[in-house]
Amino acid sequence: MQDISEWYQQVVEQAGLAEHSPVRGAMTIKPYGWALWENIQRPLDAAFKATGHQNAYFPLFIPLSFLAKEAQHVEGFAQECAVVTHYRIQTDPVSHTVRPDPTAQLEEPLVVRPTSETIIWNTFKRWIQSYRDLPLLINQWANVVRWEKRPRLFLRTTEFLWQEGHTAHATAEEALKEAHQMLDIYADFVQNYLAIPVIKGRKTPTERFAGAEETFTIETLLIDGKALQAGTSHFLGQNFARAFEVQFLNERSELEYVWATSWGVSTRLIGALILSHGDEKGLVLPPRVAPIQVVIVPVWRNDTEQAETTAAAHQLAQALQAQGVRVKVDDDPHHRPGWKFNEWELRGVPLRFVIGPKDLSAGTVEVTPRHTGQKQSVSLDQARTSAKEWLETIQKELFERAKKRIEANTHRVDSYAEMRTILEEKGGFILAHWDGTAETELAIKEETGATIRCIPLDAPPEEGKCIYTGRPSQQRVVFAKAY
Amino acid sequence: MQDISEWYQQVVEQAGLAEHSPVRGAMTIKPYGWALWENIQRPLDAAFKATGHQNAYFPLFIPLSFLAKEAQHVEGFAQECAVVTHYRIQTDPVSHTVRPDPTAQLEEPLVVRPTSETIIWNTFKRWIQSYRDLPLLINQWANVVRWEKRPRLFLRTTEFLWQEGHTAHATAEEALKEAHQMLDIYADFVQNYLAIPVIKGRKTPTERFAGAEETFTIETLLIDGKALQAGTSHFLGQNFARAFEVQFLNERSELEYVWATSWGVSTRLIGALILSHGDEKGLVLPPRVAPIQVVIVPVWRNDTEQAETTAAAHQLAQALQAQGVRVKVDDDPHHRPGWKFNEWELRGVPLRFVIGPKDLSAGTVEVTPRHTGQKQSVSLDQARTSAKEWLETIQKELFERAKKRIEANTHRVDSYAEMRTILEEKGGFILAHWDGTAETELAIKEETGATIRCIPLDAPPEEGKCIYTGRPSQQRVVFAKAY
Repeated sequence: MQDISEWYQQVVEQAGLAEHSPVRGAMTIKPYGWALWENIQRPLDAAFKATGHQNAYFPLFIPLSFLAKEAQHVEGFAQECAVVTHYRIQTDPVSHTVRPDPTAQLEEPLVVRPTSETIIWNTFKRWIQSYRDLPLLINQWANVVRWEKRPRLFLRTTEFLWQEGHTAHATAEEALKEAHQMLDIYADFVQNYLAIPVIKGRKTPTERFAGAEETFTIETLLIDGKALQAGTSHFLGQNFARAFEVQFLNERSELEYVWATSWGVSTRLIGALILSHGDEKGLVLPPRVAPIQVVIVPVWRNDTEQAETTAAAHQLAQALQAQGVRVKVDDDPHHRPGWKFNEWELRGVPLRFVIGPKDLSAGTVEVTPRHTGQKQSVSLDQARTSAKEWLETIQKELFERAKKRIEANTHRVDSYAEMRTILEEKGGFILAHWDGTAETELAIKEETGATIRCIPLDAPPEEGKCIYTGRPSQQRVVFAKAY
Repeated sequence: MQDISEWYQQVVEQAGLAEHSPVRGAMTIKPYGWALWENIQRPLDAAFKATGHQNAYFPLFIPLSFLAKEAQHVEGFAQECAVVTHYRIQTDPVSHTVRPDPTAQLEEPLVVRPTSETIIWNTFKRWIQSYRDLPLLINQWANVVRWEKRPRLFLRTTEFLWQEGHTAHATAEEALKEAHQMLDIYADFVQNYLAIPVIKGRKTPTERFAGAEETFTIETLLIDGKALQAGTSHFLGQNFARAFEVQFLNERSELEYVWATSWGVSTRLIGALILSHGDEKGLVLPPRVAPIQVVIVPVWRNDTEQAETTAAAHQLAQALQAQGVRVKVDDDPHHRPGWKFNEWELRGVPLRFVIGPKDLSAGTVEVTPRHTGQKQSVSLDQARTSAKEWLETIQKELFERAKKRIEANTHRVDSYAEMRTILEEKGGFILAHWDGTAETELAIKEETGATIRCIPLDAPPEEGKCIYTGRPSQQRVVFAKAY
């Protein structure tokens, strides 16, 4: 994979995950990509519900004045909002083209939600009166729009799909605990389902969400040596409560502003998935989220063999389906086996079973895990009884392989010159000391293109000197070039 | 229920289903309403998948020029589109208010999808080359926007949620068969899950979807005597294929335009549900879609009794949960039993179990179905073992009750005067003869406010005379005032 950027684009399109749409920056998520998203949504949704969150749905359009209520928030999103100004179209009587009807201009323009804090906090004002209304734990699955100048499928698109959690609490401690809990849920999901190792950390003030007092993040490192923020959880303090005047009567009948969090992951996770496990043959999908976990390809040279191997393939498929395995038989007579092998490798199916005439007589199946490509002949019986176990093993091996890759590309660096060399030559995570100032952070960003991805939550304190200014530092932070 | 319109608004808000948002015409779907929507989505999604459909996702924004490609289509939607004209906001240096950045105007304005035929057919052009790419069976779950002058929660909102199926076929016959199949799936779902009886029919040319050659519909009659279109399925002929030049090579290697369908149901179904079963106490939810199927209320007079009845309630709840029943124990010490009874009646929970101190000693439970309100004392054991069966019975009884109501409000009418009297006095379905012309249809609509809801698919042919012009007619059609 010489050019990973080009490889990525090709794989996303050819594997049937997504494609660019005629609207600049927007994408069409194709059925295979959508199936992946459904497999991401289901366990996440279950985890949210298991921790007491309820789903709801808030309007797509936000009045411009709402966005302006939280000063930092509007600054953060001003550059990237789609604005609705008219509510009707008409055919121009002269040119016969269709245009916005000039007589149907909105009094107050509406912003297509880039995130929903403002519209939700405007609503929470009505939902929260007393401490007994708290905590209020809400999530929504929705589309959001942020104008993108340099779109990339899944990683950065003008419209993307996500879930956004918004919670209100009686105390700062409880809100902080919630923000940490959701970060943990994200980290567990991304590691256990997507097999992507992450570092949990906090963002520097410069990199915080617009309107947050603290932003927590999970960061991973992709196969091109760039970092990706895979999910964030924000402690919003009382900022939105003050902006929207959301107060509650506490148990002592005093009015207090509530404390808030918000947190989200998006279709960007699919980009992370592709760029964590893919190889020169295409996608490599972790079994727990793979839309197809096992593909069975019957192989034949004549009609009799076709009938027999196809029947055996379907029989095995049924046995696996009964165990809850997502399985597909590719018995398409229009394509040759080699074509099919390439196709399902491209699509990242974790396990391939091939049943040929010799297998039939020997009672065997040729098994090939996608991530190793190592063929093995096993008994039909073993294929039936061990498939689920193999899938679990693959899931673990993908995580371990990604973990080793990230470890190999994580560099403890004590000189700025060394950091620049590594960033230029191979990228990766750089663990280095930083003096804690925004000036240094910005200078390093301008000179190297690298940002502080996070201040790790679980790193031990370590005395050191800032790589840039030499000033004292208590902890290494994670630098990287990022998406 | 004197004023059903007012009752509806109150119930929707007080039962926690939805509320109006500050953006005119848009609604916030509250957690209880969203849970209902999830219970509608799940079986529908399963039925779509079981018939070979795949989910995908297409962009929210549609270039204005796309909408203009199918002439009828753009006329149909021109009155109601939200138009995005800018992609950035800024703070006005003089007034300090936020406004669209005048330097960030889009070259071509974008319409927020009112429906996705145009963006999808623009994509299908790339996905379809040969007969082997057909049929293409796609569905998406999405939000759409149609500007509403007289919004009503769920029934008519500027933004609403729906699924829209879009399919492409090699032949007209196959496409028509698909349109019928989806109508059947809708009818089965609405009748079996929502317990709402429907008439399947075809729309008159006047009432067809903009761009369709045939629109099939399921129509129901609500408790206020008004009709509601609960779902539609369109045979689009080759209209969109021609507009977007989607051709395929058939088996004889000839180029042909493909044949299309589209079909959808929306959050409007929740409105239909409320207005099919509700009563003066509030919602009545059919068990199959009720977010909570059984509420258990422990009743006590002192702490010991509280501990005992609450424990018994939770024990029963666990037994029911283990059977897959959605159950809630309301052991909130802040409210009295009477308050709770009203609350869960308002929210339409199908079955209420009450466990008081006397029940504990006698080993009984007081059981009250929501739709009848008839209390009955049963053994704890029976409550445990029969709850699922009772829920199925309630499901059937709600359907039968609605069916009787609709039958009682369906009138075979042979004079226009009688029709006008019925429409003015009580509303309902009017089965009457019509001469098949748009002029007559329009005249009746203007004079009475009633439209032809559908030409029933399964009604026997019957010779008669048009109620308005006296001209010959071969079949009765369904007139009604509608939402």
